[in-house]
Amino acid sequence: MNFNSTLNSIKTYEAGKPIELVVREYGIDPKDIIKLASNENPYGTSPKVINILKQTSSNAYIYPDDSMYQLKEKLSNKFDLDESNIIIGAGSDQIIEFCIHAKCNKDSKILISNTTFAMYEIYAKQVGASILKTKDDQHNLDQFKELYKKENPDIIFLCLPNNPLGECLDARDVYDFLDTIDKDTLVVLDGAYQEYAKYKDNKKAIDVKMVIKKYSNVIYLGTFSKAYALGGLRVGYGISNTQIISTLHKLRPPFNITTLSLAAAIEAIDDQEFVDSCIEKNFIQMKEYEKFAKENNLTFIPSYTNFITVYMDGYNSKEVSQKLLEKGIIVRDMSSYGFNAIRITIGRDDQNNIVFKNLKEILKK
Amino acid sequence: MNFNSTLNSIKTYEAGKPIELVVREYGIDPKDIIKLASNENPYGTSPKVINILKQTSSNAYIYPDDSMYQLKEKLSNKFDLDESNIIIGAGSDQIIEFCIHAKCNKDSKILISNTTFAMYEIYAKQVGASILKTKDDQHNLDQFKELYKKENPDIIFLCLPNNPLGECLDARDVYDFLDTIDKDTLVVLDGAYQEYAKYKDNKKAIDVKMVIKKYSNVIYLGTFSKAYALGGLRVGYGISNTQIISTLHKLRPPFNITTLSLAAAIEAIDDQEFVDSCIEKNFIQMKEYEKFAKENNLTFIPSYTNFITVYMDGYNSKEVSQKLLEKGIIVRDMSSYGFNAIRITIGRDDQNNIVFKNLKEILKK
Repeated sequence: MNFNSTLNSIKTYEAGKPIELVVREYGIDPKDIIKLASNENPYGTSPKVINILKQTSSNAYIYPDDSMYQLKEKLSNKFDLDESNIIIGAGSDQIIEFCIHAKCNKDSKILISNTTFAMYEIYAKQVGASILKTKDDQHNLDQFKELYKKENPDIIFLCLPNNPLGECLDARDVYDFLDTIDKDTLVVLDGAYQEYAKYKDNKKAIDVKMVIKKYSNVIYLGTFSKAYALGGLRVGYGISNTQIISTLHKLRPPFNITTLSLAAAIEAIDDQEFVDSCIEKNFIQMKEYEKFAKENNLTFIPSYTNFITVYMDGYNSKEVSQKLLEKGIIVRDMSSYGFNAIRITIGRDDQNNIVFKNLKEILKK
Repeated sequence: MNFNSTLNSIKTYEAGKPIELVVREYGIDPKDIIKLASNENPYGTSPKVINILKQTSSNAYIYPDDSMYQLKEKLSNKFDLDESNIIIGAGSDQIIEFCIHAKCNKDSKILISNTTFAMYEIYAKQVGASILKTKDDQHNLDQFKELYKKENPDIIFLCLPNNPLGECLDARDVYDFLDTIDKDTLVVLDGAYQEYAKYKDNKKAIDVKMVIKKYSNVIYLGTFSKAYALGGLRVGYGISNTQIISTLHKLRPPFNITTLSLAAAIEAIDDQEFVDSCIEKNFIQMKEYEKFAKENNLTFIPSYTNFITVYMDGYNSKEVSQKLLEKGIIVRDMSSYGFNAIRITIGRDDQNNIVFKNLKEILKK
């Protein structure tokens, strides 16, 4: 059977290895597996949210409130914006999909950083759009400007901070950049890890309300998957002016998040204490990774997220991650991005110590 | 900001009113609301599944196994097919989306019955495809054949049984129809309510394995939202040959169902006893609706599903559903489909008796 030729160039997204797979392949007891490959919050879901999930379990047969009224209300309070400025997605991934499907076709172009979140490219390829990439690995706004002027792309994605490298542009530089972009180019500010970045350095904090009010062509994306510890429940959101939001709503399938996800997100947003404590612990543990890297003469990219990308100078990242895997430690090998590096989610104290111990042994050989 | 012009014609899908909305609008106590508008399973989620959901709640922070290995294994056993014949979607809706995005663009055509599941049309419009509809309200294969020959559509959707009308083609007639269709036209057999249809009349039962083996251009869709009572968790599946399935996988976003949904579906598929008992009770209660309709001189469409469409002859369906709503009873007014009818999900004994009592009073006036 023939399909749209746009599909020919699509490579399926390679997700971090799930625990189940390692159990199957290496016969390791699930409780001994340390999964630090998908930037989940290692402190687990907040106890308050777990309670709500248990209470809501018996409603699994009922479709969610498709207006998502309560969640939008909570988000609108958090960002001091109107509910009509908000769209809910099955993860912020789905909002990326809506943006590309709304704005692009096979004659379109998107502009992204050389090494950034894989889904921008995957969704763009689905509609046959061309992908323009800056030259440097990390976000370089001069290169973005240059390519923007030359190519006039339909969408620009800035990942703030950037997954999978961890660097983050200063908010002021982002605003200066936005001043130079015409109002028919959609700029997506992907803030999946913003909670981490703004804790580490307030200069990285995007002022969402100001941005949305000042720039009619900007959409900000947030997620409950990282700091809010709901990766498995797939809830994200987009914030923009009402014209953009109402257009994206045309592409939103009904009931795009589950009844349990909706209840969990509504609860999670109120448990800010839990989120703050996770972020604080994250950066204490991040220092341990930096220390470990220095002690072992490994370079790393200073990170504003809950993961760290460590170069495997003198080693082979594929081999190192494979050896870790055999010990039940799942990290992300970056060789598919063309990097001899591994990306490790910053785990808990106890998890990280096991990582350090094993990594040390592997590097010794 | 300019968007793809294909979006201009899209009308957002009107979901059944959620309980929350009725609570907000009419101040009715949630426990007094009877929601029979979205064809959820009124017997609730199986106790075994609820237990699994409670156990899995603490894993909400972890992404699901993106290979969905266990669920595919269960489905492949159920249908006696290989795991490579199966794709999992966030509801079978999402598989409809994958089919349309894989096969269609603005030059494409889809062929559907005049009054059928709204999402076929909505997804087709998203890519700018044209919608061809047969003339009769209910599925008429002669009209399908005629339009197929004349228009050569890219996809044909058969809804078996049909939502929102409830009728169901005989499987043998479907097979005869498939014999006449060229192998580059994708035929989607939407079996969201098949469990109900085959219980009522085995002539309606699609032999999924035979169909997939015999017809290289057919995909069968199933869901956990109806008989399996997981509407709120968004899990559906597509079954087809490996070429089609691997192509659709290119369009599947990673982690497209939640960690809790995955665990629930794996458990639900094993609790066949629960499913069977729900279906049995459904058709006992369906008889009560038929009796009520006859006693009140209302015509209805004999239904092979868990809902019934009743014409409001001599009344106004919009008014009747509004009056029911004010009593806390949510049904689906069919006027948006051009029908003076209401579609009622077959509820539990206690719910249906309240519906009958109130409907009788409303019709008296």
